[in-house]
This record gives sequence, structure tokens and C-alpha cells, in this order.
Amino acid sequence: MLDVCLLGCSGMMPLPRRWLTAMMARYNGSNLLIDCGEGTQIAIKNKGWSFNPIDVILITHFHADHISGLPGLLLTMGNAERKDPVTIVGPKGVEKVVNSLRVIAPELPFELKFIELNEKIEKLSLCGYNITAFKVNHNVVCYGYTLEIERKGKFSLEKAESLNIPKRFWSLLQNGEKVADGDKEYYPEMVMGPKRKGIKVCYCTDSRPLGIISEQAKNADLFICEGMYGEKDKIAKAKEYKHMTFYEAAKLAKEAEVKEMWLTHYSPSLLKPELYMKDVKKIFKNSVPGKDGKSVEINFEEE
Amino acid sequence: MLDVCLLGCSGMMPLPRRWLTAMMARYNGSNLLIDCGEGTQIAIKNKGWSFNPIDVILITHFHADHISGLPGLLLTMGNAERKDPVTIVGPKGVEKVVNSLRVIAPELPFELKFIELNEKIEKLSLCGYNITAFKVNHNVVCYGYTLEIERKGKFSLEKAESLNIPKRFWSLLQNGEKVADGDKEYYPEMVMGPKRKGIKVCYCTDSRPLGIISEQAKNADLFICEGMYGEKDKIAKAKEYKHMTFYEAAKLAKEAEVKEMWLTHYSPSLLKPELYMKDVKKIFKNSVPGKDGKSVEINFEEE
Repeated sequence: MLDVCLLGCSGMMPLPRRWLTAMMARYNGSNLLIDCGEGTQIAIKNKGWSFNPIDVILITHFHADHISGLPGLLLTMGNAERKDPVTIVGPKGVEKVVNSLRVIAPELPFELKFIELNEKIEKLSLCGYNITAFKVNHNVVCYGYTLEIERKGKFSLEKAESLNIPKRFWSLLQNGEKVADGDKEYYPEMVMGPKRKGIKVCYCTDSRPLGIISEQAKNADLFICEGMYGEKDKIAKAKEYKHMTFYEAAKLAKEAEVKEMWLTHYSPSLLKPELYMKDVKKIFKNSVPGKDGKSVEINFEEE
Repeated sequence: MLDVCLLGCSGMMPLPRRWLTAMMARYNGSNLLIDCGEGTQIAIKNKGWSFNPIDVILITHFHADHISGLPGLLLTMGNAERKDPVTIVGPKGVEKVVNSLRVIAPELPFELKFIELNEKIEKLSLCGYNITAFKVNHNVVCYGYTLEIERKGKFSLEKAESLNIPKRFWSLLQNGEKVADGDKEYYPEMVMGPKRKGIKVCYCTDSRPLGIISEQAKNADLFICEGMYGEKDKIAKAKEYKHMTFYEAAKLAKEAEVKEMWLTHYSPSLLKPELYMKDVKKIFKNSVPGKDGKSVEINFEEE
């Protein structure tokens, strides 16, 4: 089970009733944050989710609205007596940028580990999250992220019994461990079926539409995508500033055949995203205008 | 006439319904901001005051809760197409600290000018504000600030008439200008009385109580002072972290004989400041618990 919260849905600058775009995931006791603009720590408190288990922070790019809240968040985590290291992932230079911001947060009671992205696509496995970072097209280097939670195959009682595997080893094998019992060896593959469909979430902001985005979002349970503009005539502006309209985001969602798409990163001039949803839904039915604190619990599929 | 707004009253970290401590003043079309923590730009928007006329930013010290919002604010001012320079005043190193934070706001359409404070007391005159910076006692170098608005003397109609000064020169003389008319010269002193009582506001956070604070706040119309703790038994904590209790702030206000004192910079653990006011008012009657967005219009005294 994976919890996902869209902490804010503003782009460019935080507004009185709209936090900057950021996303938090909770899985198996470990939290993952994507982006951290000014006020993100307040948005987390508003939602009632906890800072302390944030083990991984993914930064899409170094524009202030995606990273300006980081020193404050790290200090607040330090005040909450976090001791475990935090891994920060971002484009090349992330360590230098974060350390520059840390001029006002020089002392933390936990270690920061950095992973710098250099390739077009990079895969990481951190705290149970399988992460794919993929380069998108903004006016500075920017990455989208896909989070996947694997699901093991089914345990076959019949196979375990027919192979006379002692019951006391079953849970070890289910957990992927090899077991030796005297001269006998048992492998997980002996009793476990093929991997089943896991959970997949894709987060992409800020970018022009790209094939790689719909490829990466393919069949995702949830696709969180920037939609800077709802007004159709703002396509030129979207191209100029390397953002997307709602309709471009919906087209990507359709191509990717995702279950649901949440729009976010609204322009400060966009007051009522819901006004545009009728036409957006014509392109992709399960399009939803994101809201601050909107969350969902995504479970493995029933079989 | 001077408008003053206490934008927030939180210390340490921003909270869902409590912005970080900062103050804004408006005088004669020029705004002055003291401190800029995470979210201060949202607090300004909430209040409905404008970013664009912010000509001067005074920073008390380099703890994140007093400066983390600066890159975001500067970017927002840039987005609002500000072109005029902004003067940033702060303790020694302010230029380096601000430039380090500007890793995420490298390009601004206006110039930043820096004034670094080195002495125990420094006087500046910027945009109509007479500013006194005075060093206080925190665990890093920290300054309090006094803002004074001068008031000219009274124009004497009798003198102007008895000296036969032509009416067309009166307003020039009132504005402090010397006037030449043929071989005659007129000086402001000929018609203007002595300077009258102006407006004075003193802002002090974070510090232990000090004589210099009540000296600087002497007879102020408004004294905004930190009160980290309302609970009397937190005096040890106040001493350890170099903050004040409400009662210490009230004692300073009494010594300074100010008109009114607003408490601010509350500890996140302090939920209801008003609970402690009865005892605070016993020390200094005109003590008020600060609130986000609390503002006052301070006028020159009636004569």
C-alpha cells in the first residue's frame, strides 16, 4: 500500500491558499518527498503527515519554487531529532546547490547523502521505492520521476507441499531468501510465482510534453503532471516558458493509458482550474484538477 | 503617517496558522521589511500589502527563520517587474549569505545593494526612514532596529508675512529648500519652527534582555519585541537559547516607557499567548500579544 499526497499545486510562487507543487509518498514506514518549495514544510504539517520518516528527497530542478523550502525543512527535521541520513537526489550540481542553501542551516544532526543524476534515464532503488529519473524539457535541466513498488509473486502452497519443504522455511522463501537444511537447499523460485503487477506513480513538472513522459508514465496508477495553463490561448506562453497546458498533459495521460491524472503547478493567474476540466476530460476522462493536500491510498490490485 | 504590520509571530519554524516573525512598514510610498523567513511573501499577500515598493530589507541575523524566504521574495518582486534597486542591511557577511541563497535566484531584474553592519550601533538614513541598528545578545550576531520618521517644525504664517516672503515660495521653504529671488534669499529657518516629535518604532528579536534595547526603544510609539516563552518556568530555556520570556519583554517596555508593546516570535510549543497576558500586563499595561497581520497606522501627534 502506497499513500500519495499532492502537497501543493502552485507554480512559480506560493499563494495564500495554494502551496507550491510538491508530492509526498509513504510506503512501509519510509517517506519520500518530491520537490520542496517555500512553505512545503507547512503543507506537510497541514496534511498531518510526519517529517521524521522522510528518507528520500527527489528534486526535479533548481528553480526556487521547487527547492527554496529545503533548508527550512531540514532544520525542522533536525529539531524533531532525526538522526538517520537523508538521501537527496537531483540533477548534476545538487550537492553544491543544497550546500549553498545550507548557509542558513549549516548544522544538522543527520547526514545528507547526495545522488547526482547525469544520464537521460537513471534507475535507483531506495527505501523500497524503485525510482526512475528521466530527463524532461524545461529551460534548465529537469527530471521527472517514476516510483514503483514491486509486488512479489504468489506463494504456491501446492508446490511447497509437493516438494516437501518444511513449513518453518516458508516465510523465509516468501521473503526471497535461500534456505539450506542439511544437504538440502530451497530457493524462492521453487514456491513463488512470477512477479505480480505492482504500484506505479509518475510525477512530472516542469516540462514541455515529450514522448519519454508518456513512456515513463505508461500504465501508472497515478500520473501527477504539470498543467501551467488552462486557457487554450496560452499555448504560446507554455511553449515560451517550457510548460504545458492542461490539454497537453491530458494527451500525455491518454497516450500513457494511466488510471488517473492529477494536474498541478498552476500559474498564479489561473484561479479556477475546474473551469477547464470539461474540455480536458474530452481528451482524457480521468483527469482531475489537483488540490493542496489531495491524497490517495493506492493498493495492489485484487486478484 | 507610518503603517506597520507584524506579518507573522512564529519563531523557529513556520506553522500552519502562524507565519514566521517579520515586520513591514509603509511610509511615503516606500516600504521597508524587517526579516524574511519562509512564507513571509505569502504573509504579505495575505495582508494585501504590495511587494513592489519594498526598497529596504533589514535582516536581524542569519538564522533560517529570519531569512529563508528572501530568495523567493526577491524572485516574486522580479516577477512583478521591479526595476529599482533594493537595499539589504544586515550583520557582517550579509552580502555573502544572500548571494549564497541566490543560487536559486541568480537573475533578478533589479540591483541589490548591501550595507553590512559592523559596529554596536549604526545609523542609516534610507528612503525617509531614519534607522538605528543596535547589536543585541543572541547566539549569533544579531541586531535590533529602530525606525524613526522625522517631523518638520511648524510653518509660521506670521513670520512669512512679517518678512514679506512671496506666497509662491512658501511650499519650497516648507520642503526645506533655500530660495533666491533677485538679490533676496530666503531660508527655511526663517519660517519653520523647531523639529517636532516624529514617529518611532523599535523591533527586537532574537535576544536576551539588554539595557541597549530599552535605551533604543525609549518613548517609542510601538515596540515589537520577541517573547519566545509565556510560561514562567521557561526562563532557564530562554537563557540557554538566548531568547526572552514575555515578562522580560514587558520589563524592557516599561523601562523604555513605550506607548505599546507587541509580543512576537513565539515558540512552536506556545499555543495560546493570550493566556499569559494578565501577568504580563501587571509589568507593562500596554502589552499586546502579536498576531499574524496585526497592523497599526501611526500618525504624528495632534498638537
